[in-house]
Amino acid sequence: MHEFELINRYFSKLSLNNKGALNLNDDVFFDKSKKIVISTDTYIEGTHFINFKDPDLIIKKILRASISDLICKGVKPKYYFISGSGNKQTFSSNNLKKISKSLKQEQKKYSIILSGGDTTFSNKLSFTITSIGFSNKIISRNKAKKNDDIYVTGNLGDSFIGLRILKKKINLNKNLNEYFKMKYFHPELHLKLIKKLLSVANTSIDISDGLIADLEKLINHQKLSYKLYLKDIPISKNLKKICDTKLVKKISCVSNGDDYQILFTASQSKSGVIAKISRSLGIKISKIGKICSHSQKSQIIDEKNKKIALKNKGYFHRF
Amino acid sequence: MHEFELINRYFSKLSLNNKGALNLNDDVFFDKSKKIVISTDTYIEGTHFINFKDPDLIIKKILRASISDLICKGVKPKYYFISGSGNKQTFSSNNLKKISKSLKQEQKKYSIILSGGDTTFSNKLSFTITSIGFSNKIISRNKAKKNDDIYVTGNLGDSFIGLRILKKKINLNKNLNEYFKMKYFHPELHLKLIKKLLSVANTSIDISDGLIADLEKLINHQKLSYKLYLKDIPISKNLKKICDTKLVKKISCVSNGDDYQILFTASQSKSGVIAKISRSLGIKISKIGKICSHSQKSQIIDEKNKKIALKNKGYFHRF
Repeated sequence: MHEFELINRYFSKLSLNNKGALNLNDDVFFDKSKKIVISTDTYIEGTHFINFKDPDLIIKKILRASISDLICKGVKPKYYFISGSGNKQTFSSNNLKKISKSLKQEQKKYSIILSGGDTTFSNKLSFTITSIGFSNKIISRNKAKKNDDIYVTGNLGDSFIGLRILKKKINLNKNLNEYFKMKYFHPELHLKLIKKLLSVANTSIDISDGLIADLEKLINHQKLSYKLYLKDIPISKNLKKICDTKLVKKISCVSNGDDYQILFTASQSKSGVIAKISRSLGIKISKIGKICSHSQKSQIIDEKNKKIALKNKGYFHRF
Repeated sequence: MHEFELINRYFSKLSLNNKGALNLNDDVFFDKSKKIVISTDTYIEGTHFINFKDPDLIIKKILRASISDLICKGVKPKYYFISGSGNKQTFSSNNLKKISKSLKQEQKKYSIILSGGDTTFSNKLSFTITSIGFSNKIISRNKAKKNDDIYVTGNLGDSFIGLRILKKKINLNKNLNEYFKMKYFHPELHLKLIKKLLSVANTSIDISDGLIADLEKLINHQKLSYKLYLKDIPISKNLKKICDTKLVKKISCVSNGDDYQILFTASQSKSGVIAKISRSLGIKISKIGKICSHSQKSQIIDEKNKKIALKNKGYFHRF
């Protein structure tokens, strides 16, 4: 069963009287009267990260994955709580020093503050991170409008190649291996974009499960479809090189998630403003498609103007 | 290493500029300007609960353990987030139905609302619960004053016997087995006491690790000691019966935690007011000892007026 089917079936009733919880159909909780926005997520070794050989890198990745949930909603993260379950090795002095150093760097980079958490003993390593921000409004899911343009920040797919390298499924030259691994460990978050995003986006989500899967989540309760143009989906020069060698397909790379770029839609009339924001902030923002009516089927158009059939829409937690 | 030594050594620096986090030396986070109070805890199968044979009971227990952190600080819980990691069996339809029903009952009982969370796949079962309340002030740790009286709500020790029964270390008659098991699964929380507690207590904590361990935590950064009178520590009639048979010692029962009663100190001048609060709310509140100066050693006095030597002060998460 998909994670959100499971949530929907059994738990959405429990938050029905709670407008803030958006019927649990969002990645964040928002209490408008208290102006508080909260995101909580669990990251498990073997599922959300391969292993804990590089605690300094992993801790940065999962912390960014957590605050990304707020940033993509137009909310500046302020506090975070981290609960770790692990064994003596996980919490060895050496690892704790590394974790602590990484957290310090992230705190400086994103102006966030560790506000609590706990450590418990378990042979299965996992972390739960809760991130909190304060805002009068957020960009919700399921607020796309017909004819909206679909945008994405930064480049997609690098993180997937990094993961394949870490899993030893791909081996490139030393520099490229390092480049892609760092893209996996250190997703790029756009703190500067927050305010502008609130003013232009109709709906938004961060890409954690993959472009297609997250786009479907973004509009999952709406009677809408989408049309994406593969040629317009932004990838790095390094990824382009790899795709040109036919080692991987562009569409698989961008559909596999872990990018933590922001996917949003905006009215066509905002097109000029968005181009301007992109230039002035120095943040790449690409128009990659359109929101269409429900009468059409969602489609992805390849470089030769043909429809692509997707086997795997992205990544879900399955039970 | 004890959990809070570990936290202190590596992480308290990270929250130094953050007055709310109370240098991580409390069970809750408090941002005074935003009037928000947050508690987050992880509960692992085999460590914090024996197994998941009774999901309906376990889920109530861990949810109460979480909101207890707020209640003991004089804060009404409002929202909770629950993140579960488990496998197909944990999240079977049958279990989800039971969990959902239990949560519904708890929501009604404590006026709290499910506000988010997630479910992830893991063979090791654990839950992280974040509870949130809103308040202008809280009762902090480490604010005991010399000569304060020490108080505790309700009865202690029943939960420990319940746990021994569940672990098949003790077997009583059917009714008593049931009584103690339910005390373990359904700790009694004193929502009605919140406001009054704020007006009388100097410092407070809930008893999760055991009376002595939590009392030491309560004053751990203070140059103070305590004197407890075993005869004054409140236990139930049922527990008294068991202690009379010499099957267990009263001091072990009350030192083993999982009671979720409130331990607090108050100035001697409040003694009359506290007795009145206890009567008017129908909540048992017992005076069990005194806060003393640092020059004395902390001591527990038994019924024969002799000092007790404690082997085990309570329960810590050790790494």
